[in-house]
Amino acid sequence: MAVYTDVTDAELEEFLKAYDLGRLLAFKGIAEGVENSNFLLHTSTGYFILTLYEKRVAEADLPFFIGLMDHLAARGIACPLPVKGRNGTALHALAGRPAAIISFLDGLWVRRPKASHCQALGVAMAQMHLAGREFSMRRANALSLASWRPLFDTSRARADTVEPGLADYISAELDDLDARWPDQLAGGVIHADLFPDNVFFLNNELSGVIDFYFACNDMLAYDIAICLNAWCFEADNSFNVTKARALMAGYESVRKLARDERDALPVLARGAALRFLLTRLHDWLSVPEGALVTPKDPLEYVRKLRFHQKVTNAREYGIDL
Amino acid sequence: MAVYTDVTDAELEEFLKAYDLGRLLAFKGIAEGVENSNFLLHTSTGYFILTLYEKRVAEADLPFFIGLMDHLAARGIACPLPVKGRNGTALHALAGRPAAIISFLDGLWVRRPKASHCQALGVAMAQMHLAGREFSMRRANALSLASWRPLFDTSRARADTVEPGLADYISAELDDLDARWPDQLAGGVIHADLFPDNVFFLNNELSGVIDFYFACNDMLAYDIAICLNAWCFEADNSFNVTKARALMAGYESVRKLARDERDALPVLARGAALRFLLTRLHDWLSVPEGALVTPKDPLEYVRKLRFHQKVTNAREYGIDL
Repeated sequence: MAVYTDVTDAELEEFLKAYDLGRLLAFKGIAEGVENSNFLLHTSTGYFILTLYEKRVAEADLPFFIGLMDHLAARGIACPLPVKGRNGTALHALAGRPAAIISFLDGLWVRRPKASHCQALGVAMAQMHLAGREFSMRRANALSLASWRPLFDTSRARADTVEPGLADYISAELDDLDARWPDQLAGGVIHADLFPDNVFFLNNELSGVIDFYFACNDMLAYDIAICLNAWCFEADNSFNVTKARALMAGYESVRKLARDERDALPVLARGAALRFLLTRLHDWLSVPEGALVTPKDPLEYVRKLRFHQKVTNAREYGIDL
Repeated sequence: MAVYTDVTDAELEEFLKAYDLGRLLAFKGIAEGVENSNFLLHTSTGYFILTLYEKRVAEADLPFFIGLMDHLAARGIACPLPVKGRNGTALHALAGRPAAIISFLDGLWVRRPKASHCQALGVAMAQMHLAGREFSMRRANALSLASWRPLFDTSRARADTVEPGLADYISAELDDLDARWPDQLAGGVIHADLFPDNVFFLNNELSGVIDFYFACNDMLAYDIAICLNAWCFEADNSFNVTKARALMAGYESVRKLARDERDALPVLARGAALRFLLTRLHDWLSVPEGALVTPKDPLEYVRKLRFHQKVTNAREYGIDL
C-alpha cells in the first residue's frame, strides 16, 4: 500500500496544465508499490497512472527508468508508456516530488503462477533483454555483490534474533559468493524485480510488465536467477522444477543462453536469494514495534538460498545441458 | 489508505461469475476509506468500485447502506449505484467478507472548500434528506448521544495525556448535552459523515456523494451540524461564517428549516463536535507506539467544540432568524 504524499485537487489541476490530457475527471490513490506514491488518474482522454517518486528512489535515476519504459514500449514490449508533457518530457514535479504519468495497463497479477505463466514470463523477459540492447543510458545495479556486505552490516548485530546462527550463515555465503561471482557473462538491461506482482496477465496471456524502478545494467542471466527465486518455489519453499523448466524454455525460445550463463545459474540464484534475504532482513529489523505494516519474511529467502546451495548444475533448474 | 483483505485473481474471477459485468480487465487496491477495503475494478463493461466490508462495519447494517444508495441513486441523487448480480441482489461475498460492487463516480474531493462548494453541499444534502423520506429501512445512529458516554469511558483514563483537563472538560460537556439534546426535531435518513473527502466535485459542480457507511436515521439538522464542523472551519480553527451562510442558503433553497431546528443548531453543532472528538480520541489512544498510520488529531475538535459553546443563537452560523 502506498500513498506517501498527498496531492491536492488544486495542485493536480495546475500540474495537468503541462500535459495535453484533457479534462481531469477523477484521481484516487492506489494501494500498490512500496517505493512510490501511485494514483489512478482519469481524464477525458483516458485512464493513467500518476507516480510521485518518493525519497527511496534516487532522483538522478529517474531519467533512466522513464527512458527505459519509453524505449521498451516503442519496441513492442508490454510495459507502461510514459506520457510526455507539452514540453516533450515525461518527468515533471508535483507536490514537491518528481512525478510522471504513465499509461494504465490492464491485467492482473497472478497469486499462484502456473508453469504456463512462467513460460510466458520467460518469453517476455528474453524479449525485454533483446529490446534493451540498444538502450543508450546506463545504471549500475545498486543491489549487486558490492552492496551486499554494507547492507548486511546494517543488520548483522541483530540477525540472530531472526534465526539463531543467521549472521554467521550470511557471512560465510558472502565470502563464498565473493569468490565465485561471475564477471564475464553477457550483460544488458535487466528488470531486476520481476516478481509476480509486477507481471500482469489477461486470460492467461501476459499483458504487461510494470515497476521498472530497480532496472539496471547487469548480467542478463541474473534476471533469470531472480525469477527462479520469485516464481518457481511453492508456498512450502519446495522448488517446482516444472515451472523452472517452463521459464527456461520460454526464455530460450527467444534468446539462447550461452554455456557460461547456464553454468553460472546456481551461483546467480544464490546471489539473487541473498539479495532479497538482505533487503528483507534490513526491512524486518527496521520496522518500529507495533507497526501496522508487516514486512516480508526474510526467512523465506534463507530457505531458498539453502536450496540453491545444494544445486550443483543448471540441469536441476530444468535446463538441458 | 485501506486494503485490509487481499483478493486473489482466482477468487475474483469466481466472484464475478455472479454478475453480468463482462470480462475482467484490471483490479487495483485503492487507498481510500478507513473502514473497508476498496478496489478499482475494470471490466469490459466499465470501471467500478468493489468494496469488501471489514469487521468495523456490522454485517447486519449492510442491507441498509446498500439499499439506501440504491434508493437515492434511483431518485437522482449523485451517489454510487450498487450493481446487482444475476440473482438480483447487490450484496455478495468475497475472500470471506461481505462484498458489493458500486458504480465508479468521477470527481475529486476539494481540500480547501470555498463558499461555493459549501453552497452546493447544502443543496445536495437537502435533496438527499428529501429523497430519503420514502426509504423504508431504518438504522439507529450508533454514534449519537447514548453512545458517547461508553465511548468516552474507553479513553477517559488517558484523555489528560492528550491535553491536561480534557477528561473533566468532556465529562462536563456530556452532562450538559444530556440535559439539552433535542428529541422533537424533524427526523429522517442522514449521511452522518459528510466530510469533504466524501463529496466529489467536477469543475466546481458537485458530482457525487460517497461513503454511506455511517448513514442512519436521526435528526436531519444533525447532518447540517456535522457539516458546519467539517466544512466551515479554517485550518487555524477559526469559523468562516461566509461558508456557513452559503451552506445554510444552499440547504434552505431546497428544504426550509423549522424554527426548532434553527434554534437547536448550536447544541447540535456541539454534539457533532463531541462525536468526532470522541472517536478521534479513541483512535488516537488506540494506535500502537511507532505505527506508520497517524490518526486524526482529536484536539481539532476540542477547539471546534469550544467555539460552538460560545454560540448563543443560530444567527452566528449565518442564519437569518
